[in-house]
Parts: sequence; C-alpha cells; structure tokens
Amino acid sequence: MNRKTIMLGVAGDSASGKTTISKGIAEALGAENVTVICCDHYHKYNRVQRRELGLSALHPDCNYIDIMEQHFRLLREGQPILKPTYNHNTGDFDGPTYVQPTKYVIIEGLLPFHSRLMRLCFDVKVYLDPPEELRRAWKIKRDTSKRGYTHEQVLTSLQGRGDVSPRFIHPQRAYADMIVRFYPPDAAMDSGDSHLNAQLVLLPTLAHPDLSDVLSHGPNGPTHHPALRLDLARFEGKPADFLEIDGSVAPDKAEELMGIIRSHLPPNAGLDASKLGRYLYGLEERRSYPLALTQLLIAYHLVRTADQMAYATDRAVAPAAN
Amino acid sequence: MNRKTIMLGVAGDSASGKTTISKGIAEALGAENVTVICCDHYHKYNRVQRRELGLSALHPDCNYIDIMEQHFRLLREGQPILKPTYNHNTGDFDGPTYVQPTKYVIIEGLLPFHSRLMRLCFDVKVYLDPPEELRRAWKIKRDTSKRGYTHEQVLTSLQGRGDVSPRFIHPQRAYADMIVRFYPPDAAMDSGDSHLNAQLVLLPTLAHPDLSDVLSHGPNGPTHHPALRLDLARFEGKPADFLEIDGSVAPDKAEELMGIIRSHLPPNAGLDASKLGRYLYGLEERRSYPLALTQLLIAYHLVRTADQMAYATDRAVAPAAN
Repeated sequence: MNRKTIMLGVAGDSASGKTTISKGIAEALGAENVTVICCDHYHKYNRVQRRELGLSALHPDCNYIDIMEQHFRLLREGQPILKPTYNHNTGDFDGPTYVQPTKYVIIEGLLPFHSRLMRLCFDVKVYLDPPEELRRAWKIKRDTSKRGYTHEQVLTSLQGRGDVSPRFIHPQRAYADMIVRFYPPDAAMDSGDSHLNAQLVLLPTLAHPDLSDVLSHGPNGPTHHPALRLDLARFEGKPADFLEIDGSVAPDKAEELMGIIRSHLPPNAGLDASKLGRYLYGLEERRSYPLALTQLLIAYHLVRTADQMAYATDRAVAPAAN
Repeated sequence: MNRKTIMLGVAGDSASGKTTISKGIAEALGAENVTVICCDHYHKYNRVQRRELGLSALHPDCNYIDIMEQHFRLLREGQPILKPTYNHNTGDFDGPTYVQPTKYVIIEGLLPFHSRLMRLCFDVKVYLDPPEELRRAWKIKRDTSKRGYTHEQVLTSLQGRGDVSPRFIHPQRAYADMIVRFYPPDAAMDSGDSHLNAQLVLLPTLAHPDLSDVLSHGPNGPTHHPALRLDLARFEGKPADFLEIDGSVAPDKAEELMGIIRSHLPPNAGLDASKLGRYLYGLEERRSYPLALTQLLIAYHLVRTADQMAYATDRAVAPAAN
C-alpha cells in the first residue's frame, strides 16, 4: 500500500465524546493539516427505507462497509473521495462531499474498525468507552441542545438501539491501541465534566512513550503523583499500561507530564499543546487536563508516524554512501 | 493495473444516441453481464449553484474529473463504487447509487474520454458523431417526450451551450477507436430513423475484423454490396477504414455480413444478435441494420477482449509443462 497520509480512527458509541477528542487533536496539529471525517454517512438506506426494513442505522447491514474500506484505503493513499452525506435533519441524503485528504486524517464514527480491511488503514486506533450512564447524560445533553430533539425522543432513541451496540460497536474495543474511559470521580454526574477522571488503557500494539520512570508506584518512584498513576495490568488477558488521570490533577503536575511526553517528540513537531483539553460546556469553553493528556498521547503517535515517514522518504531519495 | 472487467466507453454530445447504442449491446451480451453507467452525474454543483457561478454542467470544471478517473479505475479492477446521482428533475443530488460492476461495463456520457487516466481505463472507445441537425431533432424529440421539457425550453438549452461542446466534447473524437455517424440519406429528416445510413470510421487503434475480402470495392470484389462499402481513407490524417452501411441495405445482405463478423468470434461468445439494432420510435420498437452492425462491431471487441482475458487467466493458472 502506497500510503501518503497518517490515519487516526476514533470509534465509540453515539455521544461517547468522539468529536471532542478529534477536534482538540486537529486544532493542536493545525486545522490545515488535518482532515476530520465522520464515517456515519455510509448508510445504504434513508430513514423511510430503514423503517420499512426494520433496520437500525447502526447495523453493519445498513452501511456500505465495502465502500468504507475502499474510501479509507484511498484516503490512506492520499487520494480524494466523494463521500456520501447523510442529513440527520431530513433523514435522507444530500449531495456528496468531495474530500481531499491532508497530512493527517481522523476518521471517527460508530463502525470504523468493523472489518479487517478498515482496521488495516489506521496508524492509531482509539476506542472511547465512557460508562453507560455518562454516555446517556452526554447524549441527552447534546441531542436536545444541538440536534433539536426532545428529552423523550432521545430516551426513545437510546432504548431503540436494541442489541446493535453490544453486537457491533463494543467489539471494536478489542482492536484499539488505546481505550479511553472518562468517568466521574463519585456519584455526582453533572459536575461539568471538568472534574472527570480519565483511564487510558495503553495496549502494546503501539510503542507508547515510557512513563514508568516518572509515574511508577511504590516507595522508590522518583516523582509520585497521587493524581497521575501508571499501573501494569491485564486488559482482557493482554498486558497493558493503565494510566489514571484524576480530574483533580494539579495543572503544574499535568503540564509537567505533558512536557515529558512532548520531549519524546521531534523539536519541530508543530504541535500546539495549548489547544489540547478544550471542550464546550454549553456555550462556555473549559479545559480538562485528563482530556488534554489523552489527546496528547494520541497526537504523540501521529507526529511520530509522520516523523518516521519523513525519515523513510529521506532515506529513499538520499544518494547512496560511497 | 489488476483489471477484472471489460470496459466500453461511449462518448458524444447530448442526444447523440449513446443510450440507444449501449442498450442494444447490453441486451445482446446479456443484461446480467453488463453494467451500464452514465457518467454525467459527477457534477460539482447543483443547478442553483451553477447558475450563481455561471457554469455549464457540461464544463469539466463543473465535474469531478479526478473522481471519475478513480471510479473508472475501480470499476476496471472489478471493485464497487458509490456513484453520485444527479436528478435532472430537481436539478440537485439524490442519494448515491451503489454499483457492483459485472463482466462488461459500459460508461456513456458527455466527457468519458476527457483525461488520459479516464481513457486508459477503456478497452473500446466509441464516439457518436451525428450531423448537428439530426442530433437537434433527436434532442427535441427526446426532451419533449421523455424529460417533460417544452419545445422552446429545449431550443434554449441547445443555444445555451455556448462553446462547451466544441471545446470539450468534440475533441474526444480524436481518442476514439470507432466513430459512428448516423445520417439521413437525403434531406428528409424525419423518416423514422430506420432508413438512416451509418458511417463507421474504424481506427487501427483496435484490430477490427478484416472485412476487406467481402466488402472491397472494384470489379474483383467477390461479394460487392452496393449498400455496404468499405473504403480505405484518412481520418484527420490517420489511416482508417470507412464502413458505409446504407439504411436501405437488404436484410439478407446485412445478416450475411453480421454472420461473417460473428464467425470471427469464439463459438461460445454468448452474443444474442437478435437484440441488436432495436430502437424505440415513439412507443414502437423498430430495427435498423446500420445500428445492428454498428453494435455488433463494438460488441465484437468486447467479446474478443473477454476471450483474451480468459486465455491469459488459463495460462496463468496452468501447471508448467515438463
């Protein structure tokens, strides 16, 4: 595969935070360098047809999986695509959208890791896995404020999913390089998201930056942060690092860790860390360090991959040594 | 290029007879074996946007040429595409159409040979070149009867084309393997099309069946048909065979020539010649031998290419001889 772009996939159920995660990464890398695509437009049927067929829009049978495979591959090769455009308001299709991929491509959606050919296109695969109660709260908030649904309509939609999420969306977690779980520190659900903790499961399918020196537990750990913990454990049988970031982490401690991660990147990485961690709470922009660190650990892999590609290209065009 | 399908391109101006030519070939080869695609759906803008921009829908700048190149290549590789669908009634886009190519793919439209990458995808390239007066008559008849326009609207549309046809459509003739010109035998325009003569210019870019023995002029020609003539001449400087088929050709003579052409095809060619030459005149189906012979000479190349591909595949999988 003659790859030209660096591809990040962000999978997760509806309202699991995909857009928030992607947006900060895109802004930190420079909007002009990043193409963000939502892959939930590849429906086979419009809303009326789906109702007649009794099919959920989330079901793979309701989506052109083979065309997604093709389009992901084309984007990876740096080629443009004519992306279908599903209109949530009309429940039907608009004219297609021409997408010319840039250096980085972020594909977020419900089923980006559904098939092997789709998964093969990604350099980094992230799965968002908030607790179900938090996701429901996010979905109600978003769909009533931004998508014009009533509270009851959202509840009906949440119930109408049937077993599609556990059958097709959740299993994609097994293919992720990083699993992100934001969760509230206690029973208080609506504390404004800024105090949410994050648990990152870092699978060894990617070479994550080694944080064990700075974050390891135990009496000999040189800089032991109670609000930042790294634990070695198993995730579904596979060895993994569990990075815990408390929402209450002190800004200077979070910035220190971000600095350490950034020190592993090339000096000209072109990463604007001030864009990380930002999210909208209603109309107000807030900042979360767990979110910022999560985005940085993802962006880290994108920048490293870009650096490796540039190195490979340099070697390919360099004159042979005598 | 790992090609899987056999591709015919049929180019020509609006109402030049593309659909009629393609339909008979598709039916003769078996509708289940042939995918017919009109490539006039790849507009960048809908009607309102085009009006604002002052762009004709025929202009290459108004069409996704790069996506056509990509889709033609995918179809040639046997891969499905999600084809955009432009709706002439609404002047806007409908949901896209999923197209899984079959053994033969016919792509007809205004600009299928516009770029080199598009042209490279075709095994056979045909350009339809009726005299302008005949094309106008066809366009008025079709657009008033099938597309619901008034006579005046069609005339306005014909005038509104400006220089787009001579600039972008006509030049594609230079890339065709076969140029087809139906024309009336005399000044009578509306004799029902069944007496139209056909002139086929057969360029040596393809190995056309050798008809010189049966059709050569002169006193020693063994079977000289006054209504079927083959002349060697130059077409825009290039040597070419000019096959003239009079609309008045006797059915037995036409059938004889069709038999000779078919004798050059493999015995199991799967070509139903009875479907050739049929066209609708109003609601009535009629048959034209000039049309049938034209379609047969095109289908000949498709069947031969399929045979050569099968031979190449057989050789590739055959065990090496000891």
